[in-house]
Amino acid sequence: MVNLEDTIAAIATAPGEGGIGIIRVSGGEAKKIVDNLFVSPKGKKVIHMVPYQMLYGYIVDKTDGAMVDEVLVAFMQRPHSFTGEDVVEIHSHGGMVVLQKILGLVLKEGARLAEPGEFTKRAFINGRIDLSQAEAVIDLIRAQTDAAAKVAANQLQGKLKQHIMEIRQQLLQVLAYLEAEIDFPDEDIEHLTGIQLANRLTQIRERLNDLLARSRQGKILREGIRVVIAGKPNVGKSSLLNALLRDRRAIVTDIPGTTRDVIEEVLNLGGVPVRLVDTAGIRETKDLVEQLGVEKSKEWLEKADVVLFVINSATGFNIEDAEIARLLSSRHQVLLIINKQDLKPEYKGEDLPEELQHWPRVYTSLLQEEDTRKVEQALLDLIWQGKVVPSQELFLSNQRHISALEKAAGQLESALAAYQAGMPADYLSIDIRGAWETLGEISGETVGEDLLDLIFSQFCIGK
Amino acid sequence: MVNLEDTIAAIATAPGEGGIGIIRVSGGEAKKIVDNLFVSPKGKKVIHMVPYQMLYGYIVDKTDGAMVDEVLVAFMQRPHSFTGEDVVEIHSHGGMVVLQKILGLVLKEGARLAEPGEFTKRAFINGRIDLSQAEAVIDLIRAQTDAAAKVAANQLQGKLKQHIMEIRQQLLQVLAYLEAEIDFPDEDIEHLTGIQLANRLTQIRERLNDLLARSRQGKILREGIRVVIAGKPNVGKSSLLNALLRDRRAIVTDIPGTTRDVIEEVLNLGGVPVRLVDTAGIRETKDLVEQLGVEKSKEWLEKADVVLFVINSATGFNIEDAEIARLLSSRHQVLLIINKQDLKPEYKGEDLPEELQHWPRVYTSLLQEEDTRKVEQALLDLIWQGKVVPSQELFLSNQRHISALEKAAGQLESALAAYQAGMPADYLSIDIRGAWETLGEISGETVGEDLLDLIFSQFCIGK
Repeated sequence: MVNLEDTIAAIATAPGEGGIGIIRVSGGEAKKIVDNLFVSPKGKKVIHMVPYQMLYGYIVDKTDGAMVDEVLVAFMQRPHSFTGEDVVEIHSHGGMVVLQKILGLVLKEGARLAEPGEFTKRAFINGRIDLSQAEAVIDLIRAQTDAAAKVAANQLQGKLKQHIMEIRQQLLQVLAYLEAEIDFPDEDIEHLTGIQLANRLTQIRERLNDLLARSRQGKILREGIRVVIAGKPNVGKSSLLNALLRDRRAIVTDIPGTTRDVIEEVLNLGGVPVRLVDTAGIRETKDLVEQLGVEKSKEWLEKADVVLFVINSATGFNIEDAEIARLLSSRHQVLLIINKQDLKPEYKGEDLPEELQHWPRVYTSLLQEEDTRKVEQALLDLIWQGKVVPSQELFLSNQRHISALEKAAGQLESALAAYQAGMPADYLSIDIRGAWETLGEISGETVGEDLLDLIFSQFCIGK
Repeated sequence: MVNLEDTIAAIATAPGEGGIGIIRVSGGEAKKIVDNLFVSPKGKKVIHMVPYQMLYGYIVDKTDGAMVDEVLVAFMQRPHSFTGEDVVEIHSHGGMVVLQKILGLVLKEGARLAEPGEFTKRAFINGRIDLSQAEAVIDLIRAQTDAAAKVAANQLQGKLKQHIMEIRQQLLQVLAYLEAEIDFPDEDIEHLTGIQLANRLTQIRERLNDLLARSRQGKILREGIRVVIAGKPNVGKSSLLNALLRDRRAIVTDIPGTTRDVIEEVLNLGGVPVRLVDTAGIRETKDLVEQLGVEKSKEWLEKADVVLFVINSATGFNIEDAEIARLLSSRHQVLLIINKQDLKPEYKGEDLPEELQHWPRVYTSLLQEEDTRKVEQALLDLIWQGKVVPSQELFLSNQRHISALEKAAGQLESALAAYQAGMPADYLSIDIRGAWETLGEISGETVGEDLLDLIFSQFCIGK
């Protein structure tokens, strides 16, 4: 259990060199602690600051009297602060040594170094935000595309919270009717008819399903998908990679893997962060399967959400392609790129094995811009596979939320089945109450300390 | 020439993920621009903000009405702001997509993206800080050790500015006397005697020399030194590297070179950032000279401020050592590590060639902690080579300042020589006026637009 009595502190800006860096101090002693380090040229004191005020001055190291930096100090009074507690921010120049030095002085004055996510956790515990909003904070910070940021901002604004609150309220009403029926079956109070009950439950389940559809889309926007280009040597894999990367390479990142030999390029494809396994590093070897071995190739393909399987029209589907096809499991989504159509336009993949025939395909020469667009569109179609909700109306993106919604929908399904089987009201109410509790896990109302710890430990220090 | 009429904007926090990120907007339109994007739940307006106030609300994208992020807006009124102009800061969640999005909206409202260093440049142009303080900002942000940060903070506080102002004032007084003498040689006004003049000039020159000594030390604290470990195979280079890195590896950085094959480890040795060329990457080759070739080794040694030349006591100085010794030029500072004394304690380097005999040496076995300390102490002695001023009294660290001080000291020297040669007053005054102008380059009072551009272009955007 977090000790809410402590005053906590951490560097709240990203690590690295910046014009401005911020040390955030939160808790009952925040003003006193910063006041002990702060000197204002006009003799003003941090302890006398009013809410939402900033003060200019210096942080001084008392051990040698040296000025550490010129700073602005900001004060937010509880409950109107990020954490819901008194918060004092020290805005210094954004060098890591300076920030560490000031943080060190703050800790020496009695603050405790904040745990990862502890500022946001306190905001949740103090009731300023619910758990879905807390999770939105981290999603917003980590968002890699505009669309993902928008989903997180919607969630942060409390749109999901609102839905969950309403659905739980509806479930409570149904429960109240059911319990009245159980406790006072013969009294002259309003009862739901069986049909009314079934209608209500069906309505709620539909609402959950709608949220689920939105959340799966939100998850793709948030986490993106991993695309691996597969194909035998000399089919045009590198050209495809370069064509996809061109211009659209909005985000370049070097994602650390277990081994450092796999570099992913992240490109923004219609708002979806597409993690493209960069075969550039092994470009000279040309042949993924042969050079890296079947095991390694399997490992790569294991991680793929979508495989772009490039076929050479000139050679047709031969034994080398068959080797790659064998590595694809039923889990994979495949987009067939029938390439080098300029060499043999009459080839239409007729020799493809049965299990590949049902996958979408694109015929390309990969020399023209329009071919690249065709691949991109086919890729997006494969990713969405259904109607796309405008990102403004998305506010859910997280596997935890998806799982809870799925579970709650299942519980309602089970209540409906029980109703249809003519089970008694008290039997139904168990599942309905279960759904109500499951949904409370999203807002954090019915969530255990362990899960809370797990969620907030994914944050970094300073958030 | 920078257009001071524009309102400029940039992300002011370090790039990456942080709890908080800041977009800084500076200029006459800052309040209006941010007001156009900002919605307060209480209906408050940015344009009505008072100085040093913060306001809670949302940034909204007008094109689709979506909330981009929950923010705090801070207002600093000219001239009491970082730039000396009206400054509005938007404090959002610290994700790059969110920050870029908000910055994009600010630019759409009419702000211009700030050039590198433009905020600091405006602070200088608007007279809030002098040039030495502007340079201290960047030094403070980039400081890699506490000591370097302290030097920069001193300079930022205006300690150098104060010295330069005083010295220039003294020079002006001398000039006034000299000019009175030139213009009214016979009038009954106070003239300096020749001795008085010489005394004053000598005093000023001493003060410049004192500043120079401090600045050279400050430069070492700021920039650190580059140390290369050289030696034939199997003399204990890797052990030395590991011993030096242990614990003390306060800063780990991967400094991008022209080629990526040289990795430097930066360790904090008594406040000095020591950039140790990491031979770990070529550890398996064991032999720097043989495997990399003489040219490559020369290149590495070229960049070294200090070479740690490791000799194996058991073998003595042999032909392989001689090869390495040939690569050392007179420019190098060398510390001889007579290692493996445990194998042959009686070896005292008697067979070392003449040109190596005068370098400091340490006898080690590099198995014990005390040996490591001996090496470190010898390295520090070699770095400082003279009295060390406490870092609190250092406020100068920059080659530009050092050059200006050296030039001014030379000009005073030349004036003194002219005096001793019996030259007339107007001849002396040329050099003295020259020194006065040279010193003005440090504070920026006599500096050209080109140099300003050069200095500020070293900053990053957002500073």
